[in-house]
Amino acid sequence: MHPELIDTLVIPNTTKIIFLIMDGLGGLPGPGGQTELEAAQTPNLDALAKGGVCGLLDPVGYGITPGSGPAHFALFGYDPVKNNIGRGILEGAGIDFPMTERDLLIRVNFATVDKNGLVIDRRAGRIDNETNRRICRKLQENIRAPEAVEVMFQPVKEHRAVLAIRGDGLAEEIQETDPQQLGKPPLPPRALVPAAAATERILAAVVEQAGEILADEPRANMLLLRGYAKYRRYRSLYERYLLEALAIAGYPMYRGIARLLGMAIGAPTETVEEEIALLRREYGKYDFFFLHVKATDSRGEDGNFDGKVKVIEQVDSLLPDIVALGPEVLVVTGDHSTPATLAGHSWHPSPVILAAPTCRPDRVAHFSERDCIHGGLGRMPMMYLMGQALAHARRLEKFGA
Amino acid sequence: MHPELIDTLVIPNTTKIIFLIMDGLGGLPGPGGQTELEAAQTPNLDALAKGGVCGLLDPVGYGITPGSGPAHFALFGYDPVKNNIGRGILEGAGIDFPMTERDLLIRVNFATVDKNGLVIDRRAGRIDNETNRRICRKLQENIRAPEAVEVMFQPVKEHRAVLAIRGDGLAEEIQETDPQQLGKPPLPPRALVPAAAATERILAAVVEQAGEILADEPRANMLLLRGYAKYRRYRSLYERYLLEALAIAGYPMYRGIARLLGMAIGAPTETVEEEIALLRREYGKYDFFFLHVKATDSRGEDGNFDGKVKVIEQVDSLLPDIVALGPEVLVVTGDHSTPATLAGHSWHPSPVILAAPTCRPDRVAHFSERDCIHGGLGRMPMMYLMGQALAHARRLEKFGA
Repeated sequence: MHPELIDTLVIPNTTKIIFLIMDGLGGLPGPGGQTELEAAQTPNLDALAKGGVCGLLDPVGYGITPGSGPAHFALFGYDPVKNNIGRGILEGAGIDFPMTERDLLIRVNFATVDKNGLVIDRRAGRIDNETNRRICRKLQENIRAPEAVEVMFQPVKEHRAVLAIRGDGLAEEIQETDPQQLGKPPLPPRALVPAAAATERILAAVVEQAGEILADEPRANMLLLRGYAKYRRYRSLYERYLLEALAIAGYPMYRGIARLLGMAIGAPTETVEEEIALLRREYGKYDFFFLHVKATDSRGEDGNFDGKVKVIEQVDSLLPDIVALGPEVLVVTGDHSTPATLAGHSWHPSPVILAAPTCRPDRVAHFSERDCIHGGLGRMPMMYLMGQALAHARRLEKFGA
Repeated sequence: MHPELIDTLVIPNTTKIIFLIMDGLGGLPGPGGQTELEAAQTPNLDALAKGGVCGLLDPVGYGITPGSGPAHFALFGYDPVKNNIGRGILEGAGIDFPMTERDLLIRVNFATVDKNGLVIDRRAGRIDNETNRRICRKLQENIRAPEAVEVMFQPVKEHRAVLAIRGDGLAEEIQETDPQQLGKPPLPPRALVPAAAATERILAAVVEQAGEILADEPRANMLLLRGYAKYRRYRSLYERYLLEALAIAGYPMYRGIARLLGMAIGAPTETVEEEIALLRREYGKYDFFFLHVKATDSRGEDGNFDGKVKVIEQVDSLLPDIVALGPEVLVVTGDHSTPATLAGHSWHPSPVILAAPTCRPDRVAHFSERDCIHGGLGRMPMMYLMGQALAHARRLEKFGA
């Protein structure tokens, strides 16, 4: 079954759906033999699991460790392989750059080259954000756009920026220019297919000019290009599911992904308490709420087992405020696993609770990876979660006569 | 997700993966109500299951009983339906015939026809191997190859041989010639598609000549042709996964399948002890080891429940020698089920243990079909097992940004 089959069955309703996404929630046993979720005291999540139906979600596929882009696409019902989102678009979305379908988005790393043009620092000494903004302004003011395209430089953070080329017939099949080693010159932005020849010429001209414009800079005197991605428009959650959706997230990348899928974006938040306060304020205005908790993933990435446990316990303590709103469907899961013992994303499936008056409860009474194995949702591809949520919210009609 | 998605994510590593394949491992309850695996005393497999993650693997699909070819292709991550390997190739691989991409491989059954050309024994009285070799030599020495092709006869066993036709533009879409009933003449090797017309002419000429050459034989005086298969080259485990692989197997067919997938083939072995000794000697030289235990399947095929239990117990007693090598990933499973009560392959899924420091343990503490239902791997298509093994061996990078 293709995940877009549900689109053909969508009907309007007034029910509300909340996705509480604890980024990188799933884990692995730590020193005590328990995972982060097992070690955490989570009476509220356990009660939710007891009344709801649980399971395990594979973000992309068996054994595949997903990036945040594909994992979130899967959460919202988009096939993460067919819709594999390029780094350039993700970066552009993260800084809220107004992308159009004529845009080629490119992730830029500022680098340092010596007088022979050999790369001596692939991150330009991690220049600060202020320098980054100054460099981008300098490039923007001095660049002469070649071949009737527009050229836009947008700072991101430290040595990272986005280069947007706007024009007709641009192609993303271009070789990345980072030589990956010091003491080598940047690679040329070579066309990987014949149709990318014009794009190659344009990018070669931009890089050459950028080298001249930045020649007097002590550190950020060269661009390295990667993650080329032609912007494409994705069908929105409203177009697909008739859901007016609000994203509540502090981190730019997740706000960006939500924006790509047509969600409204709540005011930036710093804490989970602020996110829940915002949810409460906006609850009447939308059908679907994406609440993103970043700290579970951050602690996991840091290899901080106890820190991740604490974040889970903190979210658990705030869960009653979300439950009190009375959404017809409340889903709690992660976008992927980030075990502290691996200090990074992993391929292990993500535990999930779906709580709804219409769900068929299982015997799971504790929210953990090991308990979710026995859940009524079974182990399923994450891209089917949204269909389950819509069904439980009575937002899908019958298939066939 | 397509199983070949993992190929795009493969990265080099020095970790080692062992697949211990007990052919036909899965079973059904015998007289005592337990399956062969449940009836066996398996303290070492149980300990491995306890520390690892378990599940059930469907070799081809729900309800599909696989042959050994598709089942092993699935084990190694090759879609068994898209890569359905023809019987002729399997036979050719089993006798180590040096196949080329110009070859059409055909399974031959020698048969007996009466003076009217009607089949009176479809297996030529199961002639012995010595007669088989003599018949093949006689055919080889007397056949006049038609239409610029080469014609090669290779004995297999008893009444079975391989016929290889080497030439350009050969096709495998040819009707099998076994009439399946006694008292009927062999069917003509009729082209099933227009492009197979030349192949039909060639095969008709070969069959006619063979009938003349063998006319004085008392039993093997005719050929029946089946399992036509154009040889095709499969991408090797090294090409797909960067795995230097060694196959340790006593039986020709499994050695042949491993060779088709580019594995190195260990010296022939007679016992599991010899296989493990070979594994120990070669352990430093390869990344991936396919250890094949045939006797589980043979006892199952014989309907010998107790015999199969004994084989499982024997493998269990030797398991510590494999574990002691310290592979990063140790997988124990079968290629399919061969319940002694059915005395043949079956469609029931195969129980599996994946043991690795990076696995997320479940609550399974005993290696059996009934326990594996509750395993953390869930029930999954066998062709995804290799991706799981590569992920747990840290040999796959992240998908997407």
